[in-house]
Amino acid sequence: MSSSFPALDRLGDDARVRLEQTLDQHLPLDSAAPRLSDAMRYAALSGGKRIRPLLVYGAARLAGATLGQADIPAAAVEMVHAYSLVHDDLPAMDDDDLRRGQPTCHRAFDEATAILAGDTLHTRAFELLASAGDYPPATRITMVQRLCEAAGVNGMAAGQMQDMLAHGRVQTLAALEAMHYLKTGRLITASLQLGYLAAQVDQPTLLQDLCTYGDAIGLAFQIQDDILDITAGTEQLGKPAGSDEKHQKSTFPSLLGLEPSRQRASQLCETAQQALAGYGDSALPLQQLAQYIISRNH
Amino acid sequence: MSSSFPALDRLGDDARVRLEQTLDQHLPLDSAAPRLSDAMRYAALSGGKRIRPLLVYGAARLAGATLGQADIPAAAVEMVHAYSLVHDDLPAMDDDDLRRGQPTCHRAFDEATAILAGDTLHTRAFELLASAGDYPPATRITMVQRLCEAAGVNGMAAGQMQDMLAHGRVQTLAALEAMHYLKTGRLITASLQLGYLAAQVDQPTLLQDLCTYGDAIGLAFQIQDDILDITAGTEQLGKPAGSDEKHQKSTFPSLLGLEPSRQRASQLCETAQQALAGYGDSALPLQQLAQYIISRNH
Repeated sequence: MSSSFPALDRLGDDARVRLEQTLDQHLPLDSAAPRLSDAMRYAALSGGKRIRPLLVYGAARLAGATLGQADIPAAAVEMVHAYSLVHDDLPAMDDDDLRRGQPTCHRAFDEATAILAGDTLHTRAFELLASAGDYPPATRITMVQRLCEAAGVNGMAAGQMQDMLAHGRVQTLAALEAMHYLKTGRLITASLQLGYLAAQVDQPTLLQDLCTYGDAIGLAFQIQDDILDITAGTEQLGKPAGSDEKHQKSTFPSLLGLEPSRQRASQLCETAQQALAGYGDSALPLQQLAQYIISRNH
Repeated sequence: MSSSFPALDRLGDDARVRLEQTLDQHLPLDSAAPRLSDAMRYAALSGGKRIRPLLVYGAARLAGATLGQADIPAAAVEMVHAYSLVHDDLPAMDDDDLRRGQPTCHRAFDEATAILAGDTLHTRAFELLASAGDYPPATRITMVQRLCEAAGVNGMAAGQMQDMLAHGRVQTLAALEAMHYLKTGRLITASLQLGYLAAQVDQPTLLQDLCTYGDAIGLAFQIQDDILDITAGTEQLGKPAGSDEKHQKSTFPSLLGLEPSRQRASQLCETAQQALAGYGDSALPLQQLAQYIISRNH
């Protein structure tokens, strides 16, 4: 990330090292099916922006936790995200060949392996929350609840289903926002909730403010994704540019226009930053992350 | 099931009604993506032998619980089983068109919907263990742990991966047993563990005996499956008979011969029944279930 976000960079550098180590430690190097563990590692350890884990770490710090207290939920959230990408990329879904500049999991391995690797990343996320690190059982259970609600049939997976059904049809702006809230927003907000839970504090106002922040950046993130799909190249994105047009998807730019989409993203960034305005310098990393999300070029 | 198993029938009749009600209650009638919730219900509510839930109920009763205490883990285990069937049936995996006498989920809906319905059944199982019913957080967490270990990269999914890789190759008997232990045995034993946990007792010997019983019937179940694939018809099975030969799979009959396979299943049934011999009449349903497993004709 750019050096115009110094507080974010400081958190991000530490958080990314910790996340990679945690994923490396908790994704099997070997297993009863080595091809399957290889595919899990391929899908989860091949980079990416790591925004969701950053949100876990950022929320945990803001709630007074150490970064170490956030390692397990950060890795769990990233595993759920990685599982969803592997399945969404499959030929029967979005049929994408490239992800993060590399062949997608089913291209690097095969479809059956990719389906199973997504499945085992999914299981592993909940296993981590139930077994790893040092949290009271009640905290673990609340983390599992929040992650399930965000990922399941009224969350991320429902968003993907809505997205698939919308291919080739013009959506209303309200339907588009609702779809993205499910597909992306809920897991982003859950990341903040899990970071908050890792700190084991009782600050309901902070939790509420984190959710307000999360809902705003979740939508801003998607608007920026839609903008980049038009304005950026494939090499820059690490995935095929212009894929929204190829899939005849409604996007914020197609419904609103490019400049109004940028304005909407900018307003959402401001809403997010305002939600954390009362927390002083501790909130700087998350506030800068909101800015980064709408100014990123990949 | 046949009336030659009266104790099993008494448990089974009650358990099946409770299971259907619990699944019906906890699988969404509507959701943010109605097609997805329809597919979840289609996959989980279209019958089946319900052996895993029966094991949950049977173990819970043996440990002194009411059937009601076992409803949630019984439904969770069945959801994980249903998710695995939906994904295993996909064209990229076993490519099966028929399941329980009905079109498989991807045939009744489409591949994308089936992938997502498997995913959301998977998530929903953990959500149930984390949220539904009335259990202390530590019990919920242990249930999640056991179910994750049984389903994940060193359990059911690894078994499916091994199975896929073995198509067209002759396996050793040891490799075949190891594969089935992962693919089927671990979830069967986990079902008994979850039933035991639902009772919230501290009887480590009982838990150990249930695991011995589970490991034996898990293997016996698979041997009987292999035998039926040769000796039964498609109509009787509700899925294509002869599919092992079609996929060039090693099976117990192909490695051992038909009659020695029957003998091995019979020995395993006896091992299972012996493991519970010290528990008197309370163990009768599970002992009869072992007998049913090797004498069933579908």
